[in-house]
Amino acid sequence: MTQKLDIPQVIRPADVADWEREVDVIVAGQGVAGTCAALEAHRAGAEVLIVERASGGGGASALSSGIFYLGGGTAVQQAAGYDDDAEQLAAFLLASCDPLDPNAALAFANDCKDHFDWLEAQGVPFERTYYGGKAVWLDDTTCLMWTGNEKAWPYREAARPAPRGHKVAGMGENAGAAGMKPLLERCEAEGIAAIYDSAVIALVQEEADGRVVGVKVRQPGREFFVRARRGVIVACGSHNMCEPLIKEHLPLLTETSEPLGIPSNDGAGVRLGLSAGAHAVAMDGVIPTASIYPPGQLIKGIIVNRNGERFVAEDVYHGRLGNFVMEQPGQTAYLIVDSEVFAYPENPLAKHTLVDGWETVEEMEAGLGLPAGSLVETMRTYNADAARGHDARFRKHPDWLKPLDVGPFAAFDISFDKSHYLFITLGGIKTDATGRALDLHSNAIPGLYVVGASAAHIPRTGKAYASGLSLGPGSYFGRRAGRHVAGANWG
Amino acid sequence: MTQKLDIPQVIRPADVADWEREVDVIVAGQGVAGTCAALEAHRAGAEVLIVERASGGGGASALSSGIFYLGGGTAVQQAAGYDDDAEQLAAFLLASCDPLDPNAALAFANDCKDHFDWLEAQGVPFERTYYGGKAVWLDDTTCLMWTGNEKAWPYREAARPAPRGHKVAGMGENAGAAGMKPLLERCEAEGIAAIYDSAVIALVQEEADGRVVGVKVRQPGREFFVRARRGVIVACGSHNMCEPLIKEHLPLLTETSEPLGIPSNDGAGVRLGLSAGAHAVAMDGVIPTASIYPPGQLIKGIIVNRNGERFVAEDVYHGRLGNFVMEQPGQTAYLIVDSEVFAYPENPLAKHTLVDGWETVEEMEAGLGLPAGSLVETMRTYNADAARGHDARFRKHPDWLKPLDVGPFAAFDISFDKSHYLFITLGGIKTDATGRALDLHSNAIPGLYVVGASAAHIPRTGKAYASGLSLGPGSYFGRRAGRHVAGANWG
Repeated sequence: MTQKLDIPQVIRPADVADWEREVDVIVAGQGVAGTCAALEAHRAGAEVLIVERASGGGGASALSSGIFYLGGGTAVQQAAGYDDDAEQLAAFLLASCDPLDPNAALAFANDCKDHFDWLEAQGVPFERTYYGGKAVWLDDTTCLMWTGNEKAWPYREAARPAPRGHKVAGMGENAGAAGMKPLLERCEAEGIAAIYDSAVIALVQEEADGRVVGVKVRQPGREFFVRARRGVIVACGSHNMCEPLIKEHLPLLTETSEPLGIPSNDGAGVRLGLSAGAHAVAMDGVIPTASIYPPGQLIKGIIVNRNGERFVAEDVYHGRLGNFVMEQPGQTAYLIVDSEVFAYPENPLAKHTLVDGWETVEEMEAGLGLPAGSLVETMRTYNADAARGHDARFRKHPDWLKPLDVGPFAAFDISFDKSHYLFITLGGIKTDATGRALDLHSNAIPGLYVVGASAAHIPRTGKAYASGLSLGPGSYFGRRAGRHVAGANWG
Repeated sequence: MTQKLDIPQVIRPADVADWEREVDVIVAGQGVAGTCAALEAHRAGAEVLIVERASGGGGASALSSGIFYLGGGTAVQQAAGYDDDAEQLAAFLLASCDPLDPNAALAFANDCKDHFDWLEAQGVPFERTYYGGKAVWLDDTTCLMWTGNEKAWPYREAARPAPRGHKVAGMGENAGAAGMKPLLERCEAEGIAAIYDSAVIALVQEEADGRVVGVKVRQPGREFFVRARRGVIVACGSHNMCEPLIKEHLPLLTETSEPLGIPSNDGAGVRLGLSAGAHAVAMDGVIPTASIYPPGQLIKGIIVNRNGERFVAEDVYHGRLGNFVMEQPGQTAYLIVDSEVFAYPENPLAKHTLVDGWETVEEMEAGLGLPAGSLVETMRTYNADAARGHDARFRKHPDWLKPLDVGPFAAFDISFDKSHYLFITLGGIKTDATGRALDLHSNAIPGLYVVGASAAHIPRTGKAYASGLSLGPGSYFGRRAGRHVAGANWG
């Protein structure tokens, strides 16, 4: 059934009979981007009101694994002996995230080290610890991790590789809560007004110049208007749970995969932005993820499609890998290992099925129903390359090269419909480097800012993602929007 | 079988025993981009040598339908009464082609009117005639056509719609030859040296600074080196026929669709660029095309996926439509019409199969195996929208809205595996607005230019394409590269 996307109608100020309240700045949503925006706007002298749908702050950020992608020589990187700088970080982002907004990427790269210091000054806890292996998540408080494609070719040639995943010192899968707690406490300590169980359901916008001047709020049992003298910052999270938007932009996923998010990731931010004439971009950007690691040794296996061909370097970020699997015929792919690297995937979310074990590659090829000779040839070429330490086809890092020649052999089915993929959407409202919402002509809509997962930031495709690129840029652009709306300079 | 992409190795000058010939500028390929590059370099005072693989000039440009996407108020647009200008053209490109290189797009938009005059001054024939309908090709010499998404939502709101397809006054499917003929004659008349049946098989590149200083040429029975004092312009066409690149970047297409190109579109240009350290971008950009029109009345039908849902405005450019079909589950789609708009597709390349006719929508839904109630609901919603002249879901232009309510009903299968899709690749070597090849860091490689379909120009995805965006920007950036390599200013 065609489900219409329920885009709220903007309301004209003339149709607002009564403003229940008036402040300088309204921040819709109290995840990491909204919280940072509120803090900066407040500290720049603006009277701020946070309007949050849940019964408390935190949002999806608090339920995330708590990784901030940061670099440029942060205190943690320095402590771990990594020589990173703004130029290297920018070079990596420009090379790996193309297409992206270069202005936003350069601004983030230049300010990144200082932004880390700011986060730490708010009380966000980061240890001076480092994990050297390839991991998706760590069940301890270790901070610095390799979370992207820094060491994958060709990015390792574009920029000096450095680990840039900064995990807050919290435990478990929802370590993000340890990062949100001090930020929320700061808001309260500084007396920033917040109302909870309160949803922004429409923007109020002048007809003449398109200026956004307020919002309509729904609370259980009543609705009312709040006027914003300076502007509205939309920080409502992603559209991961918005079925019409997903069906429209990512129809392949609706049949095979599950969204990873919270119920309020229903696209309210994107929909509010669209209602005021902002433009949405990169809405087909997605991270479909079912990592083949840990354990890291599985990366020494190869991944083939139903033609028996490799199609990606196996050592790339798992989101990039998932994007490539998504593009294969039938979204079908197998992870092939020999007995020396065989192990069961440890990630409880991945659920890759062990198809079978075979004594020879020929038997495996037949068992998987691959074209005659295809897998034999792929493995012959790969093994020869691995033996001399150079993957000529995809340049997998020499660290992960080992001829797969010690039988028996095994295959895991990592196809979209056989494994268990989770997806996280990218894309959203088009914004500039200060978080201002842009229309189709790239003109800023007066009084409207969109930050965090409601906006299209860095990067715009899942092939380019690295863990931490939501909390990292989200917190940074939140801060910039907060200062800008309050009329304060940046930097 | 994993087929390795045979990237030529660059050769070091020290390893060149003998330079058979030396000129200022070598142009590899004599399609529209190479021809325009050679003319400009020659006229700026450089000694030029064209090296062309075929036995004569023209390339895929001469076999194309001969449409140049041009605007900004060309003489033809003015004659037809269309008020276009550089600003409107830029606005359209920036809105519809995102992501793209904004510098290249703005340069093209600003110079576009003058570029038309230049083409005409070379003898490229353009009539002062205009076709008002929606067409893919015209079997006559009519010039001005609507070939893109100018009238489709939201682009019609981003820029004042204007027709910008400028078809050369040639007949038939290969009208492009009528445009290439005068350009080739100019080259000959002005004494620009050219060798045919001659392929550039490798670049000669200094190790120290990466400067490209010559090429290795293969002729039947022999190979030799040519030195370029100023630089090499690679204009070798697309990688449409390059199986390894297609399998790597567009695996879905290898099973269902056919490349549209000439045998020498084997990616030589991309491969030469890669060999010298240039970066390739947008390699998954593609136009999969099997237009549902002509006749235009078929656009009044709706297109649904196997969930019985619409997913795109049916009046968009057929390449955009094809891209959306490509993303549907199973690449499956049906064109649904009622008896008032029923017609057989006229495009002989499309080969959409008529599935059947049915008395009622319910029977059609069952006949197509769509989920119960899905098509009934989709058509109920669409028909209500069409009746009031507003397609709320996808904003199909009111011109094409008609309730589909006069049975019997019919469906054409326009799925990738049931219809006959042809594809044209986009993407290629990353370049700047003067055609200089860029590396991963966006630094120019000295002495190397890449233009035409060997480069990633405007646009980079098939969703953004308009007919004529190969010959239009290809000829323009060819000219700019020609002047730049010769040391001449632009404009």
